[in-house]
Formats: sequence, structure tokens, C-alpha cells
Amino acid sequence: MYFCYMNATASKPTFAKVTPEIISQFVETVGANHVFISSEDKEKYGRDETENLFYEPEVVLRPKNTEQISAIMKICHQHRIPVTPRGGGTGLSGGALPHLGGVVLSTERLNQILEIDERNLQVTTEPGVITQVLQEAVKEKGLFYPPDPSSKGSCFIGGNIAENSGGPKAVKYGVVKDYVLNLEVVLPTGEVIWTGSNVLKNVTGYNLTQLMVGSEGTLGIVTKIVLKLIPHPKFDLLMLVPFYSLEKASEAVSAIFRAGFTPSALELVEINALQIVSKMVDSHVVPVTDDIAAHLIIEVDGNNMDVLMQEMEAIAEVLTQFEAGEIFFADDAQQKAELWKLRRRAAEAVKLKGYTIEEDTVVPRANLPQLIAGVKAIGKKHQFNVVCYGHAGDGNLHVRIHKPGSANSASDPAMVEGLRELFHLVHDLGGTISGEHGIGLVQKGYMDIVFQETHFRLMRAIKQAFDPHGILNPGKIFDMPLA
Amino acid sequence: MYFCYMNATASKPTFAKVTPEIISQFVETVGANHVFISSEDKEKYGRDETENLFYEPEVVLRPKNTEQISAIMKICHQHRIPVTPRGGGTGLSGGALPHLGGVVLSTERLNQILEIDERNLQVTTEPGVITQVLQEAVKEKGLFYPPDPSSKGSCFIGGNIAENSGGPKAVKYGVVKDYVLNLEVVLPTGEVIWTGSNVLKNVTGYNLTQLMVGSEGTLGIVTKIVLKLIPHPKFDLLMLVPFYSLEKASEAVSAIFRAGFTPSALELVEINALQIVSKMVDSHVVPVTDDIAAHLIIEVDGNNMDVLMQEMEAIAEVLTQFEAGEIFFADDAQQKAELWKLRRRAAEAVKLKGYTIEEDTVVPRANLPQLIAGVKAIGKKHQFNVVCYGHAGDGNLHVRIHKPGSANSASDPAMVEGLRELFHLVHDLGGTISGEHGIGLVQKGYMDIVFQETHFRLMRAIKQAFDPHGILNPGKIFDMPLA
Repeated sequence: MYFCYMNATASKPTFAKVTPEIISQFVETVGANHVFISSEDKEKYGRDETENLFYEPEVVLRPKNTEQISAIMKICHQHRIPVTPRGGGTGLSGGALPHLGGVVLSTERLNQILEIDERNLQVTTEPGVITQVLQEAVKEKGLFYPPDPSSKGSCFIGGNIAENSGGPKAVKYGVVKDYVLNLEVVLPTGEVIWTGSNVLKNVTGYNLTQLMVGSEGTLGIVTKIVLKLIPHPKFDLLMLVPFYSLEKASEAVSAIFRAGFTPSALELVEINALQIVSKMVDSHVVPVTDDIAAHLIIEVDGNNMDVLMQEMEAIAEVLTQFEAGEIFFADDAQQKAELWKLRRRAAEAVKLKGYTIEEDTVVPRANLPQLIAGVKAIGKKHQFNVVCYGHAGDGNLHVRIHKPGSANSASDPAMVEGLRELFHLVHDLGGTISGEHGIGLVQKGYMDIVFQETHFRLMRAIKQAFDPHGILNPGKIFDMPLA
Repeated sequence: MYFCYMNATASKPTFAKVTPEIISQFVETVGANHVFISSEDKEKYGRDETENLFYEPEVVLRPKNTEQISAIMKICHQHRIPVTPRGGGTGLSGGALPHLGGVVLSTERLNQILEIDERNLQVTTEPGVITQVLQEAVKEKGLFYPPDPSSKGSCFIGGNIAENSGGPKAVKYGVVKDYVLNLEVVLPTGEVIWTGSNVLKNVTGYNLTQLMVGSEGTLGIVTKIVLKLIPHPKFDLLMLVPFYSLEKASEAVSAIFRAGFTPSALELVEINALQIVSKMVDSHVVPVTDDIAAHLIIEVDGNNMDVLMQEMEAIAEVLTQFEAGEIFFADDAQQKAELWKLRRRAAEAVKLKGYTIEEDTVVPRANLPQLIAGVKAIGKKHQFNVVCYGHAGDGNLHVRIHKPGSANSASDPAMVEGLRELFHLVHDLGGTISGEHGIGLVQKGYMDIVFQETHFRLMRAIKQAFDPHGILNPGKIFDMPLA
């Protein structure tokens, strides 16, 4: 098995260092203004939103286009210099951290939406566009790109492709992979390919497009993205439903689907998370009462308001079987925005309270009650404080953990045993260790819980085929054997 | 470039023959009743629905379960015997044809639906279940598995995975890949893996599940399938809309989407196809008039009949801009069934009239008018008779071709030039050479039109990783270099 993150020195591949000669080549390629070598300039490129990790890269490059990225990769391939691609830096698994030094390649200057094709309901974009910017641009044309991670205001669409992001709308509309039609990719060798075709159906060779999605920047650097769009639904309704027990809240989730409804969002937030975030943003929309354990946030959307009202009522009726408290209906755009802000900023608020580690567990939806009960039991056993929230409709539960007195890192020996227990529980419940955050650096040591040696052999061979020198985002997802 | 189908002897790998000793091992593995060696018994396993091709396998095996398939693959891996997996035998690209001899491995006895999980809206099935049987079984529980190729009454769900099948509902509900959550796969080496997890969101390692979907049985044999289901819509409405020109019919297609509607089916059928199939099944539902060029078949579905009626009316209103003729609304289940029968059996009827070759072109939806015009021009130039029908809403046009006096095979030198022109046109229009039928044997020679050498290098390396001896469905999609 492979625990290189936990035992990093044993298997670190030897890469070349970035020499002054190579820096000159980079300067020639992207211009001196876009080659950062001072620690001050490089600072923010050594961090993301994962725990409190920091790794300083040797150099940061900010290319403008595909050609420059191709040229950079040719140089790095030739000299065996590690390259870590970086989008908005909002990752939660350390995927964009340059833990082995080398180059950080930022896509921030590839920030153009190239074409909104209203005739075909498609958008072609560069990877450095902020997800929310993209969503708003297509919405102006009446079109909808649904995947919206909580970080949508700062994450890049390219990073969303790398991590196969989800977000609240996934429950009805699917995740990033369901919208990606075609990708322009610079391979680690510097070669440039389009993975597929801008069509809705395609069975022409192996699905290289889907292989790229979720590969966490280890197989190639995505430089252009073609996404499918759908007509934007005209209306939505939102409600906040309190429950007196976490168990009942989680049981209610699958009952809604069994009754034949597919909400456009179905989120669960434990009461302490909601209290912490309400305080942080100074919001009073959620009534604070001692007896509430958790809330569901439920949204429906569509083109007919009467139908939506009926759906909301029918869903509320289902919830009465689970001892729901008084339902709060968001009356207007402002109330909706406030509720969503609370949900979206929950992670940030809870992290500030010391819950540094966020796990991204996912199980078949109906197993959510067992997962939550198990999470609480593991927390008790290992003296973790635990706060849960997430995309309950997908069975995707984010578990924020704080262990008083420990370093609060997924690699901390004081945490590992408890986290392994958590992931074994997830696996036993038919789930897996990441729904939408990726494996990156911090979950790598837990991959053996869900995969056998055969899986690793196949994945390593795929990596080898794309990246013969192993330079692109090395040591992420899994380790390669030493040459 | 690689034209091995057209130049087969030059690159045929050398495989071992099936000896009497190996036959004994097969008999021991699956039982004598399920080892076919007589030409009579093997006859139907040498054919599918592709043109009129026939290749006799050395032996046909009908295993019952994963363990038997694993044992067979171990034997064949050891002895380097080619294995061609086979589902319902309805393929249109020769993917299940044993053109290099060896074993045909039929999945017909793996025909059990293992579990319909109503709590999680999932079904677990063996690959040899007929698609329509699966659809009806889940519909009894109020659930919906949308992908329904025209052959749904006889094709296997396993074959649908191999070819990433689509069908009429794909326009609203997506294709097979959008429903596959997890697969049990026997690798060419005999190893058995599950590719993923039974969850709705998953970014845990490379997406082996999506790599298997559409890989045409070249990377592994799928032995268990977990599919996502959705609540079955309560109602649907169907209309048949005549047009006086093919151009106007195809222009109307993207106008419907631009107006904000997403029909649950949007099919185009050229008049001669509809006339031929009406005659074959003795149907009089479609009025025959000389001035009609093509029809659109449009379905909407949902849970509210009033809303559907409004949608149908609004779509009809859009169509008036394209000089549509008198719309025929299917009034009851019987009329709907008759219309769908005509659509579904169009390929069979037209094939009986000598249109042996079916191409599976796909372009961005709004480019359909240019595709159709180009198809007609190419037909004229190369003296092909051409009939078009297909899933217009997806930009997926099936082109049936008959060239008087030729062998009417995609490998026939008399056809190749015209077909290459067709596929270049498709590529120039932003499309690709197969939307839902796969590449298999008969489109292999055209892959160079849409892929560069880099793509082939990556795909070959993936194949090599899964199948080091190259025994599983060899010579399909692309050729491997000779060892």
C-alpha cells in the first residue's frame, strides 16, 4: 500500500531544480512580469484552502495562452521539473500545492469566456474564468450552467474540471462531468490535443474527456473548455426546515426522493455550523432555539410557479412525518441570498473556529443516517469535535473535525487512526472518500481503503502514458513507483 | 495512419489457436452445454446487425457468472487467445464480431436484475438483461432508466454500456454514461475490480467507470452494472409534424431549444424512410402526401398535464415559423406506440431495401441543416442513395446509404472515398464520426479524420495497461502496433 504523504521522504522522486538558465527560458516564454521568484511574490501560490498547509514553489509562472503553456511543459518535460497547475486556489485537498517544489503554473491570465453559443447551448471558456462569472454571463443569455461549488465566487472553472466539482445543484442537475463536452489539453510533454468533440453524444474512441475530468491536474493542463448549457429555469422557491434530531433530518432526505420529488438543492446543516456562520456574517434569519439539531435547506426550481408551489407543499407534507419544526419560506431574493450565504460560508466560519480538516464523504443517499451516527461515534471515541453539513440530497456529507491539542492535519498521526475509521465506515456503507473535493495530497494516504492494487496499477499506467517523466502535479492522488 | 480494417493482413497480430486441450479447460469451467464448437451452433455468434458481415469464431462460450468469466480470461490471457465479448448482437459497428477468430464470450446467461434499490434510486443488474426488460422492471416501481436505443427490445444493457448508447430520450435525459455509477469488470488478465462506488458524486482517483463506458468491450468485460434511476415522469405527449423541406425541418430543431424547451424526444425522419417502414409494418397512421419531405416526432414529458399541454402548444407555435404542415397529435397509448414503432423500426425497414450501411454522424445541433445538405450533395456526387433519420435534438443523424452495384460495406473501396468525404464534413461542422453506435470494426479506418497520432498513442497505452497481451476484442476501435 502507498502512504507516501505520511511517509514522504521514502518515495519522493528526484526531480531537477529550476536553474537560472531555465528561468531565462521561462522569461523568454511568458515575459519577465509573469515569472515570480521572490518569496513575497510566490507566497500566495504556496497555499490553498486545505488545512493550513504551505509549500513554497521554486518559481511561479503566469502564462497567457495554450502556446505558452505548451512551451513551458516542453521545457519542464525535458529537464524533469515538477509542475503544479493552479486555478483559483480554493482547493480543499491540496491538489494545487507544490509540495515537491518546481513550478507553479497559474492559469489566472487565461480568463476569457471565448464564446457563448446560443444556437447550440454551449459555452467555450478559458480555465481561469471564475465560476460565478461564467454562470452570470450565460444567465444573461437565459442559459444555465448548474455546478456551483460553495467557492463559486473565487474558484476557477478549470479547477472545477480538475476536481469534478459538484455543489448544491448537483442533486438535480449533476456535477461538472455531466456538462463537459470537450477540452483542449496541454499534455505533460507539451503536446496539445482536443479530447473530444463539441457534441452531445460521442462514442468515438476512449472517453479522454471524462478521463481528464476529476484527474486533478495530473494528466494534462486544461486550456479550453466546452460546456453544455441548459435553459435557465424561470423560478425557484427555497425553504429552511428545522429538525429536532439529526437522525430525523437525514432520514427525511431520502423520503423526499422516494415520494417522487427531485429538489434543485437539498442541503443539510448541523445547528452548530449554522450558529457559527450566522454569528460570523451577523445574520438573524435563522431563529436560534436550543432544541433544534439541524436544518434542511430545500430548493425547487422550474418554469411554472403554480407547479413549484404544489411541489413545495407536497415536500413539506412529507417532512411532517419526520417531526420537522416550523418551516421558514424565503419570501424574496434577499432572503434567499441570505440563506445561501449562510450555507456557502459555513466551511469558512467553522474553519475559523479551529475545525481545520474537512472530509468530503459520500454514501448512497439512504445510508446518510448511518453515516452521521457513525461519524458522531467516531468523534466521541477519538475525542474529535465534529460538525457536519453538506449536499444531503447526493449523500455527500462534509465532516469538519477539530481535535483539541493536535496539529489538525489529515497527516497528523493523532488524527490518522480516527480518519481511517471514518473512511472504512464510508466504504462499508457503499460510499467513497471524496465526492467533490478530490484526493490531492491530504487524502492520498487513505486510497487503499477503497482501491486494490489492481486499481493502482491501472491508474499508474494511465499516468505514465500521459506523463512519461511524471512531472505534472506529482505525488497527487497516488504516488508513482520510483524509477 | 491506421487503416487495418481496409488492409487487414498487414497488421493482424498473431494469436494462438484454440486447441482441444484449451477446449477441455473451457468445458471444465462453464460445462459442456455452454461450449459451442459446431458451425451450426456458432452461426449466430458470427453476426450482428452491422451490414452483412460474418466471421465464424473458433468457439462460443456462455459463462454464467463473474467467476467463470474470470477463469476464461485467465486461460485466454495465458495462451494469447482472442476473446470477443457479445451482448444481444444488435451492434451496428461490428464491435461484437470475432474477426480474428478465437472465443466469442456471450453474456446471455448473466441475465438477472440483482436489486432494485428504491431507497437510493439505483438498480444493480447483470449485463445480459434486455434493456426494455430492465426499463419495465424499474418502471413497475415508479422509476425511470431513460436510455432506450431503437433495439431496446433485444439489445443487452451490457452492450449499451460498451457502446455508450443513446436513443430518443437522450435529448432530455442524457446517454448511458450519465446513468452508470459503478461497474464490476473482469479485466483481460482475469482480475476482477469494481470501477467506482454506488454514489452520485465521486472524485476518488481516475474515473475508471467512465473509461469503461463506450470502450466497446476492449478494456474489460462488464459483469455487474449499477445504474442511477430517476422518478418516472407521470405523463407524456407526442406529436408528428410534417415539413415540406428537409432544410426547414432541420432548422426548426434548434429553434425549439432556443425558445427554452427541452423535449423528451425530438426525432427527424425523412419521408422515404417513413414510407418504407409504414409499408413494412402495414401502418396507415402517417398520411402519405407527395409534398412532404420529412417529419419531426416531438415528445414532451413531465408530471403536470396542463404544463405539458402548454409546452406542446408553444412548441407548435415555434414550428409555424418553419412552414410546418398539419400537426398530428397522438391521442392515446396505441397511437403513440404506433408512431414509436415506425421510428424504431425505420433502420430495419430501410436496410431490407438495400441501405446496408448506416453511419452515425453527430454534429452540434444547430449545424444539422448544413450536415443534411452536405450529405445529400455527397450522395449525389458519389452516386449513393441516402436516407436520413435520427435523434435530431442531439444533432445525431443516422445516414443510411446504398450504392447500386457496390458491395455496400464501409470497407468497400467503392464506398470509402465518399464516406471519408462525409466524415470530413462532419468533422468540419464540429462533429464526430459516431454518436452512439461506436467505432468497432467498420469505422476504424476513419478514426484518423478526428484524431491525431497523440490521441492514438494515449488510447493504445490505455489499452496496453488493461490488456497487456491485447487479447480482448482485438482490432476494434484502433489497431495495436505489432509486438
